[in-house]
Amino acid sequence: MTISMYQASVPVCIRSLKNLVGILEKGATYAETKKIDSSVLVNNRLFPDMFPLSRQVQIASDIAKRGVAQLAGTEAPKFEDNETTLPELIDRVQKTISYLDTFKPEQIDGSEDKSITIKQGDKSLSFQGMPFLLYFVLPNLYFHVTTTYDILRHCGVELGKKDFLGKS
Amino acid sequence: MTISMYQASVPVCIRSLKNLVGILEKGATYAETKKIDSSVLVNNRLFPDMFPLSRQVQIASDIAKRGVAQLAGTEAPKFEDNETTLPELIDRVQKTISYLDTFKPEQIDGSEDKSITIKQGDKSLSFQGMPFLLYFVLPNLYFHVTTTYDILRHCGVELGKKDFLGKS
Repeated sequence: MTISMYQASVPVCIRSLKNLVGILEKGATYAETKKIDSSVLVNNRLFPDMFPLSRQVQIASDIAKRGVAQLAGTEAPKFEDNETTLPELIDRVQKTISYLDTFKPEQIDGSEDKSITIKQGDKSLSFQGMPFLLYFVLPNLYFHVTTTYDILRHCGVELGKKDFLGKS
Repeated sequence: MTISMYQASVPVCIRSLKNLVGILEKGATYAETKKIDSSVLVNNRLFPDMFPLSRQVQIASDIAKRGVAQLAGTEAPKFEDNETTLPELIDRVQKTISYLDTFKPEQIDGSEDKSITIKQGDKSLSFQGMPFLLYFVLPNLYFHVTTTYDILRHCGVELGKKDFLGKS
């Protein structure tokens, strides 16, 4: 037995995004309880030239949906990047989860050596499927989910690592 | 072809820890250039009841060395958790990488269904090898490496996501 490309991608991304929903929900409850304008948390950032929370969530969503779509050789739906409240961001993550849920193992399995090229600004990056998943998609997704967590934690939202890891 | 347990663990952890070394080195250079006492960055945290940078690095090291050791059915070396400077933390991460480098694929491969029990405080958590790796070890490692990055970024160290992802 080994790990299939599907096992290492779709359910792993869905788990992390579901945890992200829980993290954002705690943020929304906190804002409501403390009567904090909902734009405050959404626009918060850890340093002036870092992305705010909204962008962290949008990128986490894009990394997961595009990453899985690229492994399957299809194109992910584009979202407008116009979310301005935590409930809107939660909705976006839920839509991303629903999209990932449509994939069947046979669409992803066997993509270990698949040639994948992505654009980053002016540059193109080329990968094979397995390193694309293990060294680009997953660390990138965890980076943005963790940074969302760190921003909310920095703002005083009570979160613990269980919220990030989910239930075992 | 599929992904082996070795491919999804040892090189993935080593890559992330090497990136962590680079991130900490940029922090050390920043402290030196700005004449910041080296304990300032090491003790920085994003919220009063979060762990400081030093503990984030120690946990990242522990998660990687214990995680891989558990998959191999062996015990990881214990480190003293007494690092107080960035160079000492860098040294700890380097030692962790050297330890991970000793593992051969045949020690890890086939551990997908292995029963693994870990202690967390008073509680025990039980896993099979594959979910242990995909849902506990890797997200946990990325969580602490990202939070180290976020603390340094919050302190003004110039880092970009390339430092976190490493070279493709």
